[in-house]
Amino acid sequence: MTNCVLCKDQLKPEEGEIIWRGDDCRVVLVNDPDLPGFCRVIWNRHVAEMTDLTHGERDHLMALVFAVEEAIRHVMHPDKVNVAALGNMVPHIHWHVIPRFTDDPFFPGSIWSTKVRHTPESVLSLRKQAVLELQSAIRDQISQLY
Amino acid sequence: MTNCVLCKDQLKPEEGEIIWRGDDCRVVLVNDPDLPGFCRVIWNRHVAEMTDLTHGERDHLMALVFAVEEAIRHVMHPDKVNVAALGNMVPHIHWHVIPRFTDDPFFPGSIWSTKVRHTPESVLSLRKQAVLELQSAIRDQISQLY
Repeated sequence: MTNCVLCKDQLKPEEGEIIWRGDDCRVVLVNDPDLPGFCRVIWNRHVAEMTDLTHGERDHLMALVFAVEEAIRHVMHPDKVNVAALGNMVPHIHWHVIPRFTDDPFFPGSIWSTKVRHTPESVLSLRKQAVLELQSAIRDQISQLY
Repeated sequence: MTNCVLCKDQLKPEEGEIIWRGDDCRVVLVNDPDLPGFCRVIWNRHVAEMTDLTHGERDHLMALVFAVEEAIRHVMHPDKVNVAALGNMVPHIHWHVIPRFTDDPFFPGSIWSTKVRHTPESVLSLRKQAVLELQSAIRDQISQLY
């Protein structure tokens, strides 16, 4: 779809970077300064809902989502992982996979809730260091799927 | 876990009602006056993350989540479906499956975002009528899985 931002296969640097790409999906490391390690798993084709996919496609996509969750847990040691497919603004299937920490700006709210604190810079900086390992950890997890 | 609200197998009437129960999961119709048709699929055992489940358990749970989505789409004709597992407040796996409408109180934000409008009572009332069909539609969808 020409007016869908996720149908474009290019990211501006401030949006993040593609860290894995397959025939059906891609994984993006989102550049959110408050939430290091935030990833998106995007279905390449323009489809709005999970139940628009075949059962096999759903399984494939969820296996990737959980591979990303596995890598995030291994590298970032979050207090919780949030997994969500909303798509109200961009109705093109994309899963948010978000490491959450009790000291992140929104905890225990959703990342779409009101910001309630600032994470100390020193803590954020350690998490941003960990993200450097996340890219290869995600690729490793996905390579174990096939 | 004795202090986890989802380990209790009883719901107060204001929380909603259990509309399907299996050995591993249950489906609850949430009683949210702003969001008719909002359902939760809850893993019965106390587990925090999807990747704490085996691959087979994940597949089983997601098949139920998407069966609920299918029924919601069929009965409620939402503008979008939101699917999310957060668990920051209650770290016991539960999936929110939420029919979203462009005139609901939060659209296009998440349901955890700030309320931006009131849905007209007449519209809400029609949606609440539709919810009466949702219970059997969900049970039918689930019965087709096995």
